[in-house]
Amino acid sequence: MNVKAYGAHASDLPLEPMDIPRRAPGAHDVQIDIAYCGVCHSDLHQVRAEWAGTLFPCVPGHEIVGRVSAVGAHVRGFKPGDLVGVGCIVDSCKHCEECNEGLENYCGQMVGTYNGPTPDAPGHTLGGYSQSIVVHERYVLRIRHDAQQLAAVAPLLCAGITTYSPLRHWHAGPGKKVGVVGIGGLGHMGIKLAHAMGAHVVAFTTSAAKREAATALGADEVVVSRHPEEMAAHAQSFDLILNTVAAPHDLNALLTLLKRDGTMTLVGAPATPHPSPEVFTLITKRRSLAGSMIGGIPQTQEMLDFCAEHGIVADIELIRAEQINDAYERMLRGDVKYRFVIDIASLAQ
Amino acid sequence: MNVKAYGAHASDLPLEPMDIPRRAPGAHDVQIDIAYCGVCHSDLHQVRAEWAGTLFPCVPGHEIVGRVSAVGAHVRGFKPGDLVGVGCIVDSCKHCEECNEGLENYCGQMVGTYNGPTPDAPGHTLGGYSQSIVVHERYVLRIRHDAQQLAAVAPLLCAGITTYSPLRHWHAGPGKKVGVVGIGGLGHMGIKLAHAMGAHVVAFTTSAAKREAATALGADEVVVSRHPEEMAAHAQSFDLILNTVAAPHDLNALLTLLKRDGTMTLVGAPATPHPSPEVFTLITKRRSLAGSMIGGIPQTQEMLDFCAEHGIVADIELIRAEQINDAYERMLRGDVKYRFVIDIASLAQ
Repeated sequence: MNVKAYGAHASDLPLEPMDIPRRAPGAHDVQIDIAYCGVCHSDLHQVRAEWAGTLFPCVPGHEIVGRVSAVGAHVRGFKPGDLVGVGCIVDSCKHCEECNEGLENYCGQMVGTYNGPTPDAPGHTLGGYSQSIVVHERYVLRIRHDAQQLAAVAPLLCAGITTYSPLRHWHAGPGKKVGVVGIGGLGHMGIKLAHAMGAHVVAFTTSAAKREAATALGADEVVVSRHPEEMAAHAQSFDLILNTVAAPHDLNALLTLLKRDGTMTLVGAPATPHPSPEVFTLITKRRSLAGSMIGGIPQTQEMLDFCAEHGIVADIELIRAEQINDAYERMLRGDVKYRFVIDIASLAQ
Repeated sequence: MNVKAYGAHASDLPLEPMDIPRRAPGAHDVQIDIAYCGVCHSDLHQVRAEWAGTLFPCVPGHEIVGRVSAVGAHVRGFKPGDLVGVGCIVDSCKHCEECNEGLENYCGQMVGTYNGPTPDAPGHTLGGYSQSIVVHERYVLRIRHDAQQLAAVAPLLCAGITTYSPLRHWHAGPGKKVGVVGIGGLGHMGIKLAHAMGAHVVAFTTSAAKREAATALGADEVVVSRHPEEMAAHAQSFDLILNTVAAPHDLNALLTLLKRDGTMTLVGAPATPHPSPEVFTLITKRRSLAGSMIGGIPQTQEMLDFCAEHGIVADIELIRAEQINDAYERMLRGDVKYRFVIDIASLAQ
């Protein structure tokens, strides 16, 4: 079956309409009519070949929501009409230690939702900027939000789980002081989630203009990181800092804000390295600098259920598919509050 | 009371004999006749003012062992004649969260055994290259080794606890694969301790000539880190890497050897930064880069008891006090297996 999609034929070409093939559902597959797809910074990096190994045609998109349109013979968990989502992962080895623990995101054979290896044509996976997708049931998530919220649920599939997973892993919750660095697609979700978990949340931004917005998202305090006296007031006080900023910056200024045994976890990888953090800062308070990458499938379901229960969705700007190239330019300028989501119905028009 | 010591009057002068004052024991103090004092790299950095804030005269030494010669009226835990040790800490605030948890090493008011603030003359603490020392009982450790082993016990007070503490904190033990990077004063203790804890121990060295020595210390395997194929054979396999090398080096090559959720902890701080580690390496397997600094007093006692039980001491070369300047030069060349210890009796001669 061929479906309409939006993608690029080369790294130096804009995204444009194209038809792509989708396999017929196998015994364990779920076929999904995509309603909305969030726009992640990764999409832009991958389609422009700013990361290694982009295969063309490239159809990005890994914040996918929609309704089940068909299921394979052995699928028991989903039926046509169900509201579902697909995130960054559409396959993995299913038998390693990571897969067995539900940490498919750390499986060495994890297959990304786009640009990953697949026996299906054209030989690499094609993502959610498209009318439908067929995915093994293991990697399909149930959505319990109201259907009217569906567009704003889409970013939970990447931005949501990427921040939820480290917040849970490093025990954000009541009595804990949690910093969230950067108030963008990831950071705005980090603030909402850490707040809902009951932590005392401090948002870090380079822009004083974002103070009110961060407070509205759920931050208890906002620190403008360019103001040394504001930073100094929080010295040695954080249990966890969730750092969503991918641009190279001074990690040390943030690490010194961790209390003894505190952790700063990075969820964005810069194109050029951050300045090297001072070892002395790590040693003197047994601090850790860590990283975290999306989350496993069981935890992604847990996150979606947590968000449904707490009324959490992303703050989005809905766009039509043909606006995607402009949207990328606006993302590069930081001109989005806080996530673009493509209305996939626009593909048919 | 004045006692004989060995120290420096300025950063550009060699160490030489000097007389220094020691306070009379207060109600909670233990007065110790020092028998041996280990020679730590920190001693050299501090006395040469390679670290900030060295105060002169400077008497280094924080690997102190000896016998109690007097105790204050309220001291119940020690009596004259007891074999005791003093490590890097001689005071702290005694009431903060860290002190209450027995983590005096992370107390913001921790007082180092030398170059720390004190009301005693001359206004800063003077270390163990001296005939005696007077220390609050909280910071005095009991030594249960045979008295004949006393000289080789001395390095446990810094090199021992500095490696023991992170090995315990990050759960080295049976079923765990632990790397120890660098086979010097710290590293040789790390190998012995991790082996005694039951971990599978892999020693990393830049020198193929150290293979046999590392095996003799207790390493199950030895990797020459300059050989890429030896490194590659251990990719993604370590639970913990204890990195004792203070010279700037490629952390990334070691971080990639950690399995998912593994930690590399640094216990040496370089004078100039390590090359910045790749964030991608941290993110893709949720790895951590951490630091650790000596250890608290209760854990130092635990370490000494563990070593006594397992027959563990340092490998040392005993020197006379007047050999200390030559010993420093040899340390800079890496020409010591693995720790110099000063025979304090030589001060009287």
